[in-house]
Amino acid sequence: MPPQNLRIPGPTPLPDSVREAGSRQMVGHRGPEFMELVVRVSEGMQPAFQTKADVMILTSSGTGGLEAAVVSFLSPGDPVLSVSIGNFGERFAEIAKAYGADVTTVEFDWGQAADPDAVRVAIKAMAAEGRTPKAVLVTFNETSTGVTNPMADLAAAIRAEAPDTLILVDGVSAVGAMPLEMDAWDLDVVITGAQKAWMIPPGLAMAAASDRAWAAAESATMPRFYFDLVKHRDALPRGQTPWTPAVGIFFQLAAALELLEAEGWDNVYKRHAACGATARAGLAAMGFDLFADPAFASNSVTSALVPEDVEWSAINKELRARNLVLAGGQGKMKGKLFRIGHLGDVSVEDIVSAIEIIEEGALAAGVTIESGAGPAAARRAGKEA
Amino acid sequence: MPPQNLRIPGPTPLPDSVREAGSRQMVGHRGPEFMELVVRVSEGMQPAFQTKADVMILTSSGTGGLEAAVVSFLSPGDPVLSVSIGNFGERFAEIAKAYGADVTTVEFDWGQAADPDAVRVAIKAMAAEGRTPKAVLVTFNETSTGVTNPMADLAAAIRAEAPDTLILVDGVSAVGAMPLEMDAWDLDVVITGAQKAWMIPPGLAMAAASDRAWAAAESATMPRFYFDLVKHRDALPRGQTPWTPAVGIFFQLAAALELLEAEGWDNVYKRHAACGATARAGLAAMGFDLFADPAFASNSVTSALVPEDVEWSAINKELRARNLVLAGGQGKMKGKLFRIGHLGDVSVEDIVSAIEIIEEGALAAGVTIESGAGPAAARRAGKEA
Repeated sequence: MPPQNLRIPGPTPLPDSVREAGSRQMVGHRGPEFMELVVRVSEGMQPAFQTKADVMILTSSGTGGLEAAVVSFLSPGDPVLSVSIGNFGERFAEIAKAYGADVTTVEFDWGQAADPDAVRVAIKAMAAEGRTPKAVLVTFNETSTGVTNPMADLAAAIRAEAPDTLILVDGVSAVGAMPLEMDAWDLDVVITGAQKAWMIPPGLAMAAASDRAWAAAESATMPRFYFDLVKHRDALPRGQTPWTPAVGIFFQLAAALELLEAEGWDNVYKRHAACGATARAGLAAMGFDLFADPAFASNSVTSALVPEDVEWSAINKELRARNLVLAGGQGKMKGKLFRIGHLGDVSVEDIVSAIEIIEEGALAAGVTIESGAGPAAARRAGKEA
Repeated sequence: MPPQNLRIPGPTPLPDSVREAGSRQMVGHRGPEFMELVVRVSEGMQPAFQTKADVMILTSSGTGGLEAAVVSFLSPGDPVLSVSIGNFGERFAEIAKAYGADVTTVEFDWGQAADPDAVRVAIKAMAAEGRTPKAVLVTFNETSTGVTNPMADLAAAIRAEAPDTLILVDGVSAVGAMPLEMDAWDLDVVITGAQKAWMIPPGLAMAAASDRAWAAAESATMPRFYFDLVKHRDALPRGQTPWTPAVGIFFQLAAALELLEAEGWDNVYKRHAACGATARAGLAAMGFDLFADPAFASNSVTSALVPEDVEWSAINKELRARNLVLAGGQGKMKGKLFRIGHLGDVSVEDIVSAIEIIEEGALAAGVTIESGAGPAAARRAGKEA
């Protein structure tokens, strides 16, 4: 299959050095060379988490990381508050329910961010029932809607109302693409995934946990084996993982971290912000309705409504004929939304180019668009950002 | 780090085309190109399982596959018989216990195979207590000891005693390296892992399940999410996986299957048998005590006792100085055993070369060896096989 112009919110295109690292010969995963690499990539990710905690690396998708966050620190029957703003918020809650947590959900309309005051009210109501949440599940960046929650404000509101609760954060499409301060914001568990900002292939989930979380792990009784983060924590100082790791993707992570460190994390975040502005300006100027609340629009993925008189499949067919791969809607927004991923190895020029193809494809599919307006607005926004 | 002469029981060295497939650019994991690939590699593995059942592909290590086999088909409290001949047999049982199964273990001495009659007796004893096993856990090839269980005989014995039980098979280091007939032997779940006979990097587990297993899944209540095989089964006909798959390793699996198909499965099994004979003859001629019962010695991994007057670490240091990477003992045999992996992309010449280096290294570490005897015996055995 030919190379794709891949603009989905993960997997993302790989830089050349990351691609090449994927062709390296295997080494023993219990030997000194690999042990040194495990420690190096784990430490290399700490600046993106802004944490002193160890960053553990699991061989799974991001969803596996979310399962690890639930099962390693909680017990069946624990009251849990799920703060959901979309498909991945729902998934996080489903995992907790599957393992027997007593889940209360505070849902916000898709396209909106979570309101810290409403979260406080929800915690108060649970406390009044004698069900102060043992954990609160929050999605930092909701990939299905392109909304970034005000994570610091949410964490402060949660902590004010429930000082001892565990704040478990789905940071899968956020960490590395936008600033996160795990320790300063007092988050307890943060999860991310390989194929997002890390610009490596899918197959790894990364997790960091606070002292508060580790204390909770001592009495947590949810059944667990593969996703037991205690086993990962205990193996890490020896440069080990409890189970055979995806060695090749570790090589690729090391290569990606070299690029990210050379660029500098502040520049990485600025680049993502510029790409987000470019995508939003381009789509809006073409006449698409942006789905996310503008105050909380994500810098790693942008969503827009499919025009009412056209099927997404018709537009998508035209885009794929032009080799541009976007994502459709998920869950209840299937067929109603489309999404542009702009995270990982992406530039303003890449997004302007995607906007140009979207204009062409949408026109071909019969969408009414003022020709040239989208790319021009995208270029302008990219320059100003 | 320089290339290693890697002779551990996985990860194994990668053929060039498999390495190169690891450097491919990403594609969308929900698009038509990748969907076609998922179906192709799934079908491509069926001959090694000798099954008509779908082969599902999970993004995890083999241990994750074992967890999937347990949690997808069983309920807490289910009586389960664990047939254990080593470290991985113990692990399979630990997973079942972690999820609340009522596990009875029949253990055989490490280095020995399981005795079908003893397994029958164990099932009878459980039945007499009204605890007929809902499932029997069996390791086909025990990687920690280098013993291959008589899987067909064991399955027949189990089935004779408990016609409706689920036979769950850890085939991680067996499938693709030695003949397996999942359907003919009436096995219910068979698990394997990427970095073994498949000669691709770690990060994928493969699983197939019988109709009997799927019927059991309908009433199975162990908590599960990521490792729910029902979700995998339902996604597969659409060329999908329920969670984002390790796309790069799928590319490598496709490349490996091309090589294996070109060689032909019978030839692949003969090559593994020849490598096993070579390793055993070489080590024995050097004076090492082979650990596995000769009648059940594995063709994918060979284990030998560390001589009493030398530390494994001392020998291993000399081997590593010569760039040969072997595996030590696991569990209670740590420091007492060493192991040569000979599965995946391996030839008789590779194993003769390893035997030569073992001779040199062991001599340097002070082991008394008749110089030249090991390599000569290895060469002879490889020719005769």
